[in-house]
Amino acid sequence: MKDTAFDVPYKIYLGEHEMPDKWHNIRAAMKEKPEPFIHPATGKPCVKDDLLPVFCEELVEQELNVTDEYINIPDEILSFYKMFRPSPLVRAYCLEKVLDTPAKIYYKFEGNNTSGSHKLNSAAAQAYYAKKQGLTHLTTETGAGQWGSALSMACAYFGLELTVYMVKVSSEQKPYRKVLMETYGAKVVPSPSDTTEIGKKILSENPGTGGSLGCAVSEAIEIAVKSQKCRYVLGSVLNHVLLHQSVIGLETKLAMDKYGLKPDVIIGCAGGGSNLGGLISPYMADKIRGNNNIEFIAVEPASCPSFTRGKYALDFGDTGQTTPLIKMYTVGSGFIPSPNHAGGLRYHGMNPALSKLYHDGYMTAKSYIQSDVFAAAEKFARCEGILPAPESAHAIKGAFDEALKCKETGEEKVILFGLTGTGYFDMTAYQSYHEGKMSDSVPTDEDLQKGFNTLPNIS
Amino acid sequence: MKDTAFDVPYKIYLGEHEMPDKWHNIRAAMKEKPEPFIHPATGKPCVKDDLLPVFCEELVEQELNVTDEYINIPDEILSFYKMFRPSPLVRAYCLEKVLDTPAKIYYKFEGNNTSGSHKLNSAAAQAYYAKKQGLTHLTTETGAGQWGSALSMACAYFGLELTVYMVKVSSEQKPYRKVLMETYGAKVVPSPSDTTEIGKKILSENPGTGGSLGCAVSEAIEIAVKSQKCRYVLGSVLNHVLLHQSVIGLETKLAMDKYGLKPDVIIGCAGGGSNLGGLISPYMADKIRGNNNIEFIAVEPASCPSFTRGKYALDFGDTGQTTPLIKMYTVGSGFIPSPNHAGGLRYHGMNPALSKLYHDGYMTAKSYIQSDVFAAAEKFARCEGILPAPESAHAIKGAFDEALKCKETGEEKVILFGLTGTGYFDMTAYQSYHEGKMSDSVPTDEDLQKGFNTLPNIS
Repeated sequence: MKDTAFDVPYKIYLGEHEMPDKWHNIRAAMKEKPEPFIHPATGKPCVKDDLLPVFCEELVEQELNVTDEYINIPDEILSFYKMFRPSPLVRAYCLEKVLDTPAKIYYKFEGNNTSGSHKLNSAAAQAYYAKKQGLTHLTTETGAGQWGSALSMACAYFGLELTVYMVKVSSEQKPYRKVLMETYGAKVVPSPSDTTEIGKKILSENPGTGGSLGCAVSEAIEIAVKSQKCRYVLGSVLNHVLLHQSVIGLETKLAMDKYGLKPDVIIGCAGGGSNLGGLISPYMADKIRGNNNIEFIAVEPASCPSFTRGKYALDFGDTGQTTPLIKMYTVGSGFIPSPNHAGGLRYHGMNPALSKLYHDGYMTAKSYIQSDVFAAAEKFARCEGILPAPESAHAIKGAFDEALKCKETGEEKVILFGLTGTGYFDMTAYQSYHEGKMSDSVPTDEDLQKGFNTLPNIS
Repeated sequence: MKDTAFDVPYKIYLGEHEMPDKWHNIRAAMKEKPEPFIHPATGKPCVKDDLLPVFCEELVEQELNVTDEYINIPDEILSFYKMFRPSPLVRAYCLEKVLDTPAKIYYKFEGNNTSGSHKLNSAAAQAYYAKKQGLTHLTTETGAGQWGSALSMACAYFGLELTVYMVKVSSEQKPYRKVLMETYGAKVVPSPSDTTEIGKKILSENPGTGGSLGCAVSEAIEIAVKSQKCRYVLGSVLNHVLLHQSVIGLETKLAMDKYGLKPDVIIGCAGGGSNLGGLISPYMADKIRGNNNIEFIAVEPASCPSFTRGKYALDFGDTGQTTPLIKMYTVGSGFIPSPNHAGGLRYHGMNPALSKLYHDGYMTAKSYIQSDVFAAAEKFARCEGILPAPESAHAIKGAFDEALKCKETGEEKVILFGLTGTGYFDMTAYQSYHEGKMSDSVPTDEDLQKGFNTLPNIS
């Protein structure tokens, strides 16, 4: 589609008065809804009361809401958003030149806040609802550290205590992420720890373990359910997280509409799906309604290929198999990905609404090996200035390939991708790329089968 | 002065079409000019030819230009600026609430680019002029790493080779800064090194030395003067650097004027003076002309008090005593500041134009110990979101004190400060603050006298 607008600036910033005041709930637009969560003990759909001991009440309501397409953003959250939103929609003029492509490339940049990623959009909302409910304390887990950092900022802002269970090996590899969270007042506990029963059990069985995300989730939930004043919060996968992240897509659409721009392709990296789901939300609703024919592309690491090589099946959300069962694309909660620096994309499953949309053919997916992703990241950084997070660089690589296709065909497509965050805390990954020490291993079919073997027998 | 504007947004972003297309040269507005550089061998003012072997030609012209108040920004630089400018002018609503002050606090935030600071404003310009002159290679030194990072980005953009001499102890303490520069294609050499004669000499005399900024400068200059295709560039202190940084003040003034805002106090941290000089430039010109009565406050670390305890004297710009002599506030080129994490504020001297303005009573200065600065930084981060660089946090502490004065007096002053950058690469400093291990030592009169003893005898 031709870019008909004259004089598109390098960065389109909406005014604060133009910011969306409602989130977009993609499930309301879906003709066939994603399947409900299943209670693993009863085999029946989960109801509100099943989730209340773990999650904040309003978040549970949002999680279960498949009917309201727009949900008001409370003023308190809007005020917080104004500290770092609207985020810029950037026209990648320099990149287009370097790639020598007729494509028009745009990216929505979510890294201009101290947490360094889009995670703050949901952290702000979740902390607000916790405060409103009269809670005093939240728990969560973090792997790569972006979510933990974002939630630390949100809890500092709303005056909540926060305990972050950080995968032990991550807390050792990324000591600065830990300091960052502490600067915002969070208590960071390397997991497994002796602060929980499950942590003690794991430590006694595996004294030297570096921990895992699954274990950190279990510790965080254990603390949360013990107290009336405490709940557990999660930074991806769940539908209410995608709801909050829809602010990314809504702003993007407003900004593009303002300049008469219509994307032909929208690309997002996909771990649990929060950024991708947020970015595409309003555009996907239009596609479902037959109002556009945009190609949506999810990009994941070849080392953890939930969409491209996973199964659409009921699975647990955590390695400890304590959560409700979720119908989603998954490589199995017991799948162990090879070491991969894009920590945010190592999750075994995928948001259930996105899974359903992918299953129904509304979007496609592809995967890349890590070295190719870092090569794209470095090229991007040198011409566009911004140093991308390894996760975001997957979307960059996807955009490169689409732009190069246009070079071959001569098509002037409008390519939009989500630049979810910055890589300031990922310099060791860039270093191993420079030194040629980066692992590009991809799971064998046998590796995947081991993961699939951990899928529950119900389905 | 009362804030008469209704509905000032959290962040004022100028449109790209509103960006200044000229820099502001404060020296042209000064009734008494700063004294010219003196050639140490002849005792006479330096002329263009004295500086050409070291610096790019157009930069030398800008350095010597005390008559043109406005200098055109070339289109190529404007295009580069559009990748990260205009920068936001932020109304610190949350901070005002936390401080419970009637003051209206604004900050110009220069950290929204990968180099993490305002340094990119001058790096962009210097790399452009080098390219235009047909050079292929630049050299520089870096201590804290912000300048080296900014110049790496600019050289990647314009296609220039760059060698950064990084103080050896800094390159070991801040390995990620090194990786960042390498990601943008720069060659980073820990200094002293065996790549130069001066480096070899220092290494043979002090085999275990961690290096110094002075030594790194000498190495970078030695390489630059050896080649017709190479020049040396500097990130602060010099007048042409302040000229480029005036884009900060010009944008600020445009944004404030748009909302009818007139600052009563302007505060900036001061190392070599580039950010402070850039921020105040157009406002200072108005003050010189009697059009405002703004209070300008330079904030420096108590560990390196050039303004507050230094002498206004002719001094060398580098520890190696190889540069022209500069009339400036200085604690002596041989002064050794105690370890201080605000690496960018450890310079012994101060830009000559700012020195003259301070000497003539147009501005004031104060200093703070490091722990007080980090306490302010942490409080700021928790309410405003942004994690400040240690250097920038000096200005924050200054703004806190002015805002608290307003709380006592009830005055609704408009306080503006420069938030020059982010602290992502300074987490070890935040960590030592949390752990109570931060040094707050302040030089004794005897320590200062040792520095003054290294001043040249001419004056």
